[in-house]
Amino acid sequence: MSRVVRYRRSDGRPRWGVLSADGERVHELAGGPHPMGTPGEASEPTASIEIMAPVRPSTIACVGLNHGLTRAALDRPASRQPMIFLKSPGSVTGPNSSIECPPGADVLDVAGELAVVMGRRARRVAEHEAMSHVLGFTCANDVGVRDWLTSDSQWFRAKSSDTFCPLGPWITTGLGDPDAASITLAVNGEKRQSGSMAELTWKIPQIISYASSYVTFEPGDVILMGSPAGLAAASPGDTVEVTIEGIGTLVNTVTAPHEARRTVL
Amino acid sequence: MSRVVRYRRSDGRPRWGVLSADGERVHELAGGPHPMGTPGEASEPTASIEIMAPVRPSTIACVGLNHGLTRAALDRPASRQPMIFLKSPGSVTGPNSSIECPPGADVLDVAGELAVVMGRRARRVAEHEAMSHVLGFTCANDVGVRDWLTSDSQWFRAKSSDTFCPLGPWITTGLGDPDAASITLAVNGEKRQSGSMAELTWKIPQIISYASSYVTFEPGDVILMGSPAGLAAASPGDTVEVTIEGIGTLVNTVTAPHEARRTVL
Repeated sequence: MSRVVRYRRSDGRPRWGVLSADGERVHELAGGPHPMGTPGEASEPTASIEIMAPVRPSTIACVGLNHGLTRAALDRPASRQPMIFLKSPGSVTGPNSSIECPPGADVLDVAGELAVVMGRRARRVAEHEAMSHVLGFTCANDVGVRDWLTSDSQWFRAKSSDTFCPLGPWITTGLGDPDAASITLAVNGEKRQSGSMAELTWKIPQIISYASSYVTFEPGDVILMGSPAGLAAASPGDTVEVTIEGIGTLVNTVTAPHEARRTVL
Repeated sequence: MSRVVRYRRSDGRPRWGVLSADGERVHELAGGPHPMGTPGEASEPTASIEIMAPVRPSTIACVGLNHGLTRAALDRPASRQPMIFLKSPGSVTGPNSSIECPPGADVLDVAGELAVVMGRRARRVAEHEAMSHVLGFTCANDVGVRDWLTSDSQWFRAKSSDTFCPLGPWITTGLGDPDAASITLAVNGEKRQSGSMAELTWKIPQIISYASSYVTFEPGDVILMGSPAGLAAASPGDTVEVTIEGIGTLVNTVTAPHEARRTVL
């Protein structure tokens, strides 16, 4: 198991690295994780670097309505096939950055979700081969605007507004299929969601196989598996934490439009 | 006015260039078009190069239902706000390449559309400033699968399957706002769509202003303005040509899954 980070020092250039077992130090991964290289011997303290979103996906496919609670919240029936929607690559932001309320929205849906990070090109992959295309997993917050999910037929601004896809803090590799990992979401330290990957209707290999029959996934592309515990709400000033068992915790703060601070991708 | 191409010689490396006035020769544009550099003096015959998709967008925002004929075909009412959906970056393909039928679809919707190529970052841009963020325009074919547009709530596979966003053959700059340009689409040489940008419900500055209030557009990102002439159908073996007045003609051939040839992006 290793934890792959994207980070920058004060010089600003994004680098890849691997955390030490105690998380205190980072070893640079000069060639990046696609494919996974060997980290250098030299290291520096994690405290001295800024952790960024651990991937820069081109395609972000999200599984919608993947739990009975979410379907109930949005008044939608279960479907015979997975419901997939896209987030824009520009919606990605990193750990400890702002989730910005877009104009006209002052309450956001937040949802803790497992993000699958692809490691090898996946095109028309069978279920039994799906996991071999995965590099690892990170935490995601699938931010949305409830009113627009119902008013807009397509979820462009509802799900892809800037900063609506926090990812991080790192890619955990070597986990296997976290098909029973617990996921919690807290707002200002108070638990608002608690669920398990085991409760999801559609599983990771099914989703990779289904989605890759239409769209080719490249290394670094991401699939958000959907919330196993419905939706929670957050407003400007709130701090939102997504914690996934075996991975870590992704922390972001919600801001009104003019306050936003966006991490460099 | 100039025509910016992405191309490769037999060595395979993608390059940027500008066509000569007669289109016979290409001058390399070493720094690319973001921002627009100065083309070199040396040139080579256009006949010896392979023309690729002229942009590699990260965000592809598409205006749906932007004409009464499209709304009628999909049985949808006019809306008070533009209807925007995303295409996946991986759906882009170049001129003269294949549009591949995905599994389960043997008839495709095809639609000739103007693609707006962004030249400067656009974030919360006012309508009167919108056109200053545009580099130029190219032809797009907004390919889709009709059954999935109606059966799926979100248009992931319906609009973002591999090869569903042919773009090209070049970016025409210095056109101004082509707000009355004619667009035609022909299948196997027979005209199937004929319309004018003037017939669209939502205009380019309105769309840039609306969409950029939620999503930041980076140089090279693309907005498809929607079809001014409803939808047409194409099947494996068909050749589809999109022609836009003042820009040029984008030609692609529809194939069944196993025949597809995809241009390198």
